[in-house]
Amino acid sequence: MTNQAKPLILVTNDDGVTAPGIRNLIQWMNILGEVVVVAPDSPQSGMGHAITIHDTLRCNPTTQDAGPQTEYACSGTPVDCVKLAVHQILDRKPDLVVSGINHGSNASVNVIYSGTMSAAVEGAMQRIPSIGFSLLDYSWDADFSAAKDHVLSIAKNVLAKGLPQGVCLNVNIPKVSDQPYAGIKVCRQTMGHWDEDFEARVDPAGKPYYWMRGEFVDSDGGDDSDIWALKHNYLSVVPIQFDLTAHHALAAIHGILGA
Amino acid sequence: MTNQAKPLILVTNDDGVTAPGIRNLIQWMNILGEVVVVAPDSPQSGMGHAITIHDTLRCNPTTQDAGPQTEYACSGTPVDCVKLAVHQILDRKPDLVVSGINHGSNASVNVIYSGTMSAAVEGAMQRIPSIGFSLLDYSWDADFSAAKDHVLSIAKNVLAKGLPQGVCLNVNIPKVSDQPYAGIKVCRQTMGHWDEDFEARVDPAGKPYYWMRGEFVDSDGGDDSDIWALKHNYLSVVPIQFDLTAHHALAAIHGILGA
Repeated sequence: MTNQAKPLILVTNDDGVTAPGIRNLIQWMNILGEVVVVAPDSPQSGMGHAITIHDTLRCNPTTQDAGPQTEYACSGTPVDCVKLAVHQILDRKPDLVVSGINHGSNASVNVIYSGTMSAAVEGAMQRIPSIGFSLLDYSWDADFSAAKDHVLSIAKNVLAKGLPQGVCLNVNIPKVSDQPYAGIKVCRQTMGHWDEDFEARVDPAGKPYYWMRGEFVDSDGGDDSDIWALKHNYLSVVPIQFDLTAHHALAAIHGILGA
Repeated sequence: MTNQAKPLILVTNDDGVTAPGIRNLIQWMNILGEVVVVAPDSPQSGMGHAITIHDTLRCNPTTQDAGPQTEYACSGTPVDCVKLAVHQILDRKPDLVVSGINHGSNASVNVIYSGTMSAAVEGAMQRIPSIGFSLLDYSWDADFSAAKDHVLSIAKNVLAKGLPQGVCLNVNIPKVSDQPYAGIKVCRQTMGHWDEDFEARVDPAGKPYYWMRGEFVDSDGGDDSDIWALKHNYLSVVPIQFDLTAHHALAAIHGILGA
């Protein structure tokens, strides 16, 4: 299946294997290496780092469109896709995992809820250089074309130079406008939050149910943050780690617990 | 529903509202305050920080056993439960979110996959002091009793003194043995990993499917880590943050991307 001469690139996402975002990403990655796609067979947005531990997984070859890539559609979450690809489908470790291009922002705290970004984090946990890409346009018909050169450049640099151990990249791309992109900005995760509410409805049987709604609030405002970069038409790149320890808080916790 | 005199404690988990772990935790929290339970109506292990964004949520009053607590069973993920509780069910902000007691370890990188811990992280994102508790015993009949005093002491201290902004606690409790617990150890997340493989099977229709399996490997070995503490019969307490930025890697990423 694999060819030692070219880098092996695993492509996944959370919008599902048919989404235009991943179809674009596959075409572009075909330029850089041998591409194997293992992506969800249905939308998995908002799945975070969920894995399938009490159920079976299906993973079958699929053909979505012409091209040299090999493709599989998987019944699981984006993180399942990465684990299944690395440990079952592929006969060697990929040189790069790319996830996306997500339809919609994964900037700020969205990184935590995002299946697309969790796939990239899982790639880093498997010690593979990994990048998640997202476009700030939720539309199925979103225009991804303007991002092509930047996406290729970032992927090429990461293939050539690797990434620090335990770190993956969260790349967000502004929605296409009249202005060309201002460039790439390496920045930190904005400490924003979602202001949620729930719309209560009643079903035809008279029983209540809820829809979650929310509005993102940039309660941070820093000019070194990803939301700032995106507002100023930069692609934002945040290095993401999976050591969740709040090292700065260890002393405070000693004090609080008296331990 | 609420009583201003007593602290309001929201209790949730990922094993579901009927699990012995949460039934113990509810009884103990009744000692400290007014308890409202909003927990999944079915097991949600391994759901990470998943949320329900493309489907409806159900949340109905339930009675599991006698006690002063108010209880709701919710169709969503643990993170959905926290959001629904805070923004729909409760008429004031809880003073404390406790999640668990999980049946099984959430030490090391398990924190990332854990629905129990993601509920605590979501509590911190909602700016509520939050704690996730887990027992290193997967059995439904696990003995939680030995942990009671420590769990109460940690919860009492957090109620009295709060937690640093943006930080929640990941508390893991050794399995009950002949030895009393050695105490509480504040520590960092062990940088271990899961060594996964997939068992391929064939269904009665002749089609392939997979079961994920795995073995945890402590590839860290540090004596300031949660795995070390648990091995030495301490309860481990790791402060967990949701700023995933690898601040230490920002300069390296500038170099790699030439940006």
